[in-house]
Amino acid sequence: MKIKKYLPALLLGSSALLLAGTLGAQEMATEVPFEDAYAAFMETPGAAFFTISNLWLLISAALVFIMHLGFATVESGLGQSKNTVNILFKNVFIVCMGVLTYAFWGFNAMYPGFAEGSAGVFAMGKWFDVTASVDLMTSEYANYTWYTDFIFQAMFAATAATIVSGAVAERVKLSSFMIYATLLVTFAYPLTGSWKWGLGWLDMRGFYDFAGSTLVHGFGGFAALACVLILGPRAGKYVDGKIKPILGHSMPLATTGVFLLFLGWFGFNGGSVLSADPYLVSLVFVTTTLAACAGGLGAIFTSWIFLKKPDLSMGLNGILAGLVGITAGADVIAPKFAIITGLLAGIIVVFSIIFFDKIKIDDPVGAISVHGVCGVFGTLAVGLFGECAEGVGGIGIQLLGTLSVGATAFVFSLIVFGLLKVVMGVRVSPEEEAEGLDIGEHGQEAYPDFSASR
Amino acid sequence: MKIKKYLPALLLGSSALLLAGTLGAQEMATEVPFEDAYAAFMETPGAAFFTISNLWLLISAALVFIMHLGFATVESGLGQSKNTVNILFKNVFIVCMGVLTYAFWGFNAMYPGFAEGSAGVFAMGKWFDVTASVDLMTSEYANYTWYTDFIFQAMFAATAATIVSGAVAERVKLSSFMIYATLLVTFAYPLTGSWKWGLGWLDMRGFYDFAGSTLVHGFGGFAALACVLILGPRAGKYVDGKIKPILGHSMPLATTGVFLLFLGWFGFNGGSVLSADPYLVSLVFVTTTLAACAGGLGAIFTSWIFLKKPDLSMGLNGILAGLVGITAGADVIAPKFAIITGLLAGIIVVFSIIFFDKIKIDDPVGAISVHGVCGVFGTLAVGLFGECAEGVGGIGIQLLGTLSVGATAFVFSLIVFGLLKVVMGVRVSPEEEAEGLDIGEHGQEAYPDFSASR
Amino acid sequence: MKIKKYLPALLLGSSALLLAGTLGAQEMATEVPFEDAYAAFMETPGAAFFTISNLWLLISAALVFIMHLGFATVESGLGQSKNTVNILFKNVFIVCMGVLTYAFWGFNAMYPGFAEGSAGVFAMGKWFDVTASVDLMTSEYANYTWYTDFIFQAMFAATAATIVSGAVAERVKLSSFMIYATLLVTFAYPLTGSWKWGLGWLDMRGFYDFAGSTLVHGFGGFAALACVLILGPRAGKYVDGKIKPILGHSMPLATTGVFLLFLGWFGFNGGSVLSADPYLVSLVFVTTTLAACAGGLGAIFTSWIFLKKPDLSMGLNGILAGLVGITAGADVIAPKFAIITGLLAGIIVVFSIIFFDKIKIDDPVGAISVHGVCGVFGTLAVGLFGECAEGVGGIGIQLLGTLSVGATAFVFSLIVFGLLKVVMGVRVSPEEEAEGLDIGEHGQEAYPDFSASR
Repeated sequence: MKIKKYLPALLLGSSALLLAGTLGAQEMATEVPFEDAYAAFMETPGAAFFTISNLWLLISAALVFIMHLGFATVESGLGQSKNTVNILFKNVFIVCMGVLTYAFWGFNAMYPGFAEGSAGVFAMGKWFDVTASVDLMTSEYANYTWYTDFIFQAMFAATAATIVSGAVAERVKLSSFMIYATLLVTFAYPLTGSWKWGLGWLDMRGFYDFAGSTLVHGFGGFAALACVLILGPRAGKYVDGKIKPILGHSMPLATTGVFLLFLGWFGFNGGSVLSADPYLVSLVFVTTTLAACAGGLGAIFTSWIFLKKPDLSMGLNGILAGLVGITAGADVIAPKFAIITGLLAGIIVVFSIIFFDKIKIDDPVGAISVHGVCGVFGTLAVGLFGECAEGVGGIGIQLLGTLSVGATAFVFSLIVFGLLKVVMGVRVSPEEEAEGLDIGEHGQEAYPDFSASR
Repeated sequence: MKIKKYLPALLLGSSALLLAGTLGAQEMATEVPFEDAYAAFMETPGAAFFTISNLWLLISAALVFIMHLGFATVESGLGQSKNTVNILFKNVFIVCMGVLTYAFWGFNAMYPGFAEGSAGVFAMGKWFDVTASVDLMTSEYANYTWYTDFIFQAMFAATAATIVSGAVAERVKLSSFMIYATLLVTFAYPLTGSWKWGLGWLDMRGFYDFAGSTLVHGFGGFAALACVLILGPRAGKYVDGKIKPILGHSMPLATTGVFLLFLGWFGFNGGSVLSADPYLVSLVFVTTTLAACAGGLGAIFTSWIFLKKPDLSMGLNGILAGLVGITAGADVIAPKFAIITGLLAGIIVVFSIIFFDKIKIDDPVGAISVHGVCGVFGTLAVGLFGECAEGVGGIGIQLLGTLSVGATAFVFSLIVFGLLKVVMGVRVSPEEEAEGLDIGEHGQEAYPDFSASR
Repeated sequence: MKIKKYLPALLLGSSALLLAGTLGAQEMATEVPFEDAYAAFMETPGAAFFTISNLWLLISAALVFIMHLGFATVESGLGQSKNTVNILFKNVFIVCMGVLTYAFWGFNAMYPGFAEGSAGVFAMGKWFDVTASVDLMTSEYANYTWYTDFIFQAMFAATAATIVSGAVAERVKLSSFMIYATLLVTFAYPLTGSWKWGLGWLDMRGFYDFAGSTLVHGFGGFAALACVLILGPRAGKYVDGKIKPILGHSMPLATTGVFLLFLGWFGFNGGSVLSADPYLVSLVFVTTTLAACAGGLGAIFTSWIFLKKPDLSMGLNGILAGLVGITAGADVIAPKFAIITGLLAGIIVVFSIIFFDKIKIDDPVGAISVHGVCGVFGTLAVGLFGECAEGVGGIGIQLLGTLSVGATAFVFSLIVFGLLKVVMGVRVSPEEEAEGLDIGEHGQEAYPDFSASR
């Protein structure tokens, strides 16, 4: 929705707000003008819609935050108990680091970087709380404060590294991963993100990615693929040409994670409407839910037919596949096509997981398939099923966009993770891998009362 | 609250909205008129309240969604570790299936089915996204979009089958249960639901059930009772006339589930106000919380006195009992009576659980007592403590309503589950039951690292 | 923000609302005038902002509620498996009890107690649903209903006792703790709370505590210290002058708890704005998140340097430390200083935990350090980094305030818990402690399938 009618009031009010906000940011020295301007804005007819929308984005930020717990639990649940502390630690670190580097650099690299003659190519970041923000806030889309924008996007930012975390689990060296993840979140994610959401070259060419099938999930999935290629499979996974399953240690933990990710996706997609617009937010809730459910059923029945048993892990990955699949077009794909998108994603993810296992690319949680493959599929689904404006979301630009972003994430990871391998190593010793990273990296067990050494 | 003052604006705006929405649903071919009509509506004085209310119902839908994780964890926590994957799988399946069948059939069977000369007897469902919806949306109660209405109700729909899932756990045959649950959610739940919420014959006669003590919980509880009668108790539960407790395998999981259900109930009851009306939503939060807390204390002290020990499971079931108990009258029962309602429910549930165990009806999670018995009690509590309008919520119609719905769920389940027993069997083999359904049905263990076969 | 412009309408509308609400509370006998007055209020220009704000506080209440699950899981995760049922039971009991005693006594002791000539010294409580509430609701700050105010504050109330629960875990006698916790929540918490939030003597002197670094966390931390001093350390913790770590039994449970607490803090701090004011709520989200993340990193790197290993528990406690640290000034500390506040709290908590262990004060979950020490630090941080009005939040009054409240909680606990020790004992027998409180107090195991007695 373009709330053109409120535009003058919004322009006036939010100009005052941001001018004042800017002054306020300068040590809050001149409080009186800010309070006056803000009070004036809050009396405009658009203030109620602004307030509701702002609140919805904050609630969405909280929902996206809980996705980090979802990732932490699904990844640790699908890993072995001896590597649980390590997986949880990585996820705790990524959230903390991701939000802070996004404040220091990422946010202003991803969004207003293009505003000043950067010609859509490269964005320079800086501390988020600066005057450069005025442009965005006075646009007709700004139904939220600058702080809200930052916190909502910051919660997204760490997700990419979290996706990689699952794929490299159970053998990656902690310190190397921490350095890699920090560089990925700080520099690579805002770069590719700016191409679309920062109104860069992909956006100019009609690329459509509503909430990040490509910019978040595809990005993370391709980064994960590069890292796994460098890292190699876990010891004992592929022995004498045979695939030996390494079982996750807690299915309740994994299931909890998927439900929490599903929950968080209401904020991830619903908040990406960037307002509380009733029609769009409710449509996005419906398409997101239908796709997730269709993905779950698609994966359940596909795996039942091909693996002979109804597999819980596949059902869970099917839900995630459906969610990733609908994310690019949740606001432009009609409900019936949302079901088809989710169903296809749920079927695709099963074969993708089997495929990567066959070619000995060891991904303990299926992150490459769920986020990478279904991220690409979801981006293309906009071209297949989406009702976009003229010249937007065509299959050509969708393909170009998803491959550009994926390739960038892949090459960046290949270089950075490859350099780390040369300089300090990226893999723990075989002894540590056998004993578990919890003891090796942290000197701590996840379940001391139940451990094998009991 | 009847927002009569906004009515003309709402009628105008939402007529335009829905007319346009309908056209939009027809392949979104005529976008311009929809955008115009919608923009006009969003300028009306009622648009702010509409937007807030719509957002609250969407957030409520997300909260009700998380109840499914609550059910999954409480049921698996109270079951044995060897049946955990199976319980989790059932819950994942039920959510996915329930939402989709509700889209394909249930929603339009439950709500607008009566609109067209069906005389309040039987509703025919169809794909939810149709023009039949205009009637509802232009009523004075419609403070939300059609999509929002669907997603909020869809999250409720699967709950009934989830309740049954807990009661039949640890011995039910997966495929039979999946068929039964699908039929229950698709056909039986919308049928009885339409009697009240679809403005059917119970509604016409003054039956009151605010958020579903009868329509959701009583329904599920009586369906569970029928299934358990057909299925019989778990092996080893009743031996030589003695009751042998079969212990749940993870109390943290069960406790997590109850807290999540409590959390979700803020959406379940709070969203059932069907607007963001400040007075009513806050009243419902207060009555819901007070009843839950009183139920918890009631069950804790009752079980302490009669079982000699303060029992955690009973405390947890007491909270759920209080929640189920207040659900029928959360908006018409004053806070002091909410405490009494919850307290009584908490006491009743303890004796009910003991009673069913005595008569050898084996319900691993206490679902029949929590949802069935306390669902009936809560429905009657409206007659005892509620402040309803003249001729509404009398004890007579409350009793008739809750028994009608319960009996229908019971008979439907008896027939369908009974037929499934004859045709394909509803119970796993004794060997599979002993070994656990995780291996038998799924070839997967919930905790491979900690299992007995370690 | 002082919404002065809406004041007349709000005064009129909410006077009518509360007058009617009061009458309504008297058995809801005179419904018509209430409906009319309320409908009139809902037409005023301020009604939209009132409705949004009211909804945000209710959602915040739900978020604070989920903190109780956070406490339950973090405490049980950091305890041994043999005491898990006991820890969960205590948390379930505290929520239920805390909300009810707050309704019966606490709320009216904490808030309107000072309204009637009590001279800021002592507040007398009574049933929350009374006419005394009119004063508060007609003030210019009231952007929510009386019911909303109650439920939001009630969710806070039980937190103090929950903090103590963690510190005394694994050896406290259940019945004694239940009595102590009830008295603490019912009488001590509203007393000290009223000194600031009830506009008592600390408030009159310019003490600033936005969301409770002192009033909730410091209070709980100092109460915990007193109880731990009386109770003594767990058997086997300090043997022959050496510290023997007693390991938590489930790091996934503990990590889940911290993420849930982080999530809940968005409501704890965000809701404490007491409106949906876009600028303030978004600022609070930003400062809260930045402080939490900086606290996590601060503790991770501090513990890495001093303990040689990156410790997950320390990272988790660092996040909590950052959250507690920012709570007093989340609305008056600029983002850059929020990072510094969180970072310092994260560093402080590591040394504090080590310190208390050195002087043999055994606190299984680090509650005294996280809530007590960081609560004091956060209160002082307002004096160091906060941008308060003239004469508010100076370091002197901040120190006086936090020590007054802490000392009161400490002395109250010393007396009450000390008396309980004399009268009925506060510690389980050495045999019960060795066997575990789950069997001893509840006759129940948390994990029967995995227990040592398997």
